[in-house]
Amino acid sequence: MSKLWSPAVRELTPYVPGEQPREQLIKLNTNENPYPPAPGVGEVLRDFPTNHLRLYPDPDSSALREALAREHGVEVSQVFVGNGSDEVLALAFQAFFCQSRPLSLPAITYSFYPVYCRLYGIDYRTLALDDAWRVPLESLPADSGGIAFANPNAPTGHGHSRDAIAGLLERVTDCVVLVDEAYVDFGGESAVPLVDRYPNLLVTGTFSKSRSLAGLRLGYAIGSRELIEGLERVKNSFNSYPIDMLASAVGIAALQDKAHFEACREKVITTRERTRQRLERLGFEVLPSQTNFLLTRHPGQDAAQLFVGLRERGILVRHFNTEALRDFLRISIGTEDEMNHLIEALESLC
Amino acid sequence: MSKLWSPAVRELTPYVPGEQPREQLIKLNTNENPYPPAPGVGEVLRDFPTNHLRLYPDPDSSALREALAREHGVEVSQVFVGNGSDEVLALAFQAFFCQSRPLSLPAITYSFYPVYCRLYGIDYRTLALDDAWRVPLESLPADSGGIAFANPNAPTGHGHSRDAIAGLLERVTDCVVLVDEAYVDFGGESAVPLVDRYPNLLVTGTFSKSRSLAGLRLGYAIGSRELIEGLERVKNSFNSYPIDMLASAVGIAALQDKAHFEACREKVITTRERTRQRLERLGFEVLPSQTNFLLTRHPGQDAAQLFVGLRERGILVRHFNTEALRDFLRISIGTEDEMNHLIEALESLC
Repeated sequence: MSKLWSPAVRELTPYVPGEQPREQLIKLNTNENPYPPAPGVGEVLRDFPTNHLRLYPDPDSSALREALAREHGVEVSQVFVGNGSDEVLALAFQAFFCQSRPLSLPAITYSFYPVYCRLYGIDYRTLALDDAWRVPLESLPADSGGIAFANPNAPTGHGHSRDAIAGLLERVTDCVVLVDEAYVDFGGESAVPLVDRYPNLLVTGTFSKSRSLAGLRLGYAIGSRELIEGLERVKNSFNSYPIDMLASAVGIAALQDKAHFEACREKVITTRERTRQRLERLGFEVLPSQTNFLLTRHPGQDAAQLFVGLRERGILVRHFNTEALRDFLRISIGTEDEMNHLIEALESLC
Repeated sequence: MSKLWSPAVRELTPYVPGEQPREQLIKLNTNENPYPPAPGVGEVLRDFPTNHLRLYPDPDSSALREALAREHGVEVSQVFVGNGSDEVLALAFQAFFCQSRPLSLPAITYSFYPVYCRLYGIDYRTLALDDAWRVPLESLPADSGGIAFANPNAPTGHGHSRDAIAGLLERVTDCVVLVDEAYVDFGGESAVPLVDRYPNLLVTGTFSKSRSLAGLRLGYAIGSRELIEGLERVKNSFNSYPIDMLASAVGIAALQDKAHFEACREKVITTRERTRQRLERLGFEVLPSQTNFLLTRHPGQDAAQLFVGLRERGILVRHFNTEALRDFLRISIGTEDEMNHLIEALESLC
């Protein structure tokens, strides 16, 4: 601890992302897409006029926001973009949740949310998931300073329907409701069509999962003009140009290739369901998933030991060492071939 | 103003960057480099394995930090990288300047600094430049909560020597001294060799100016391990992966081409001095500059009118409408040909 740091910095507990190993492993630990990004991405990079890089990018990222607005059927003024959805989420927590009343979060959801709260001094309350490991929409208090959760949720995989989200928004009208849709393209139902009806709804999304662009860092938010303006005020007090020229061009190319997008997500969904059945045949309990991962536990096996055994066999999955999740493994959906290796390894371990 | 925003967001006054025009203009308004980035940048993009983009980047940006550490003769643990030096500066303000004592800033310096102060609720005091438009090192109070300035300074162009910075650091030992070296490669003297002697010195730099990569968004900070750890704590509570894979690869390629770097900066310096002499012959007063811009005023001409006249002739420069700078134009150094056009236009206007 340094006396040169701002006092609050001494109290921070940074987020710990999943490991990015340097050795060759079957990597099923950070919910990356096993398929490459759209072929147009390679063309964009090959043909990019590098002399343009000497100039600052468009601070408003208009071209990328226009492409996202078309994709989602909203106005450009309803779209915000950032350097990965982690940055978008951080700016949203600062823009909306620094309130006198506490933020409400599910007890189990994306574990970066409490980290943002500590960074910005946001008081928060957690609510237990229901008996079916679902975000308890009915229990989220209407007098919160804000509400945030992932839908489908991580690391459980369950997603609420758009109607259920609308029900929450009928009841909660005085604070921002942030719905993080990082995984929605793998079988969830997006709340984006609700943003015109509910000015306090902010939906976030990412190019990292269904667009196979985790290495590029592109995220976005969609909501009312009022919420997007709040985000822009914070962004323009933090970093005028968060989206570099290459990221913008690559992101636009990825959005244009709808056939590639559909084919990849359908392969992931098919492999997920097949993997679920195979895990169940091995005696695993597997939570229903609308995402590109499965949360699973085995009644007769210690999850931490399974994690180690898989790693010894060259397969990296995620184990969260928290009381609620200690018995589970979270397994990202890879290619069919990768999942065959996983099942074989588990057969030898169980 | 929305009641859904965090109360502090209503008080923000965002930074306003220089215009990025859509039409074709001779663009001398945001201190971009007129020469392209290193030729190796194009090769990196052409050969980049796009399939890698499906994976998250290294959250620690080790390869890029190693390249910067080699370049600057420091340890990797003394290097921090961010999404443009604007992000690095923002995180540094949050990490070090949220103190009970106020931050000290020169009254004229990079105008983003007071914006960060408002974003993070940092109290600050400004000190007037001296009679020669220099940052008043002797007047910066030792009991500040922090000190920040650009060296060479913007938009004046004056840079203090390394010895002068060391003198400040002999006197100011209890708070972080942030020296922003965005422009140092155009004739300034870097304070980086002082970081081992003064653990409270943080030096920031950018790939935007002398590396011709403003469109890429890469910035960095160099300091003691203690300061870099403070920055990492904030960064890892904000965004695990601020540097995308392409930015890292391009940045490393740019650092490798020392001959291109030297050639471009020497051309800029030569053109700057030639432009200064030509402006003086037209009756302009021109402040001495160690940067890639000139701050200049004409005793018989209104700067705002000159700005408009130049724009009508297809040339964009920067005019700051503040009391101290109202009489001046800040002119970025373009190619010889662009500066010939500028001088011709001014000849017709003056």
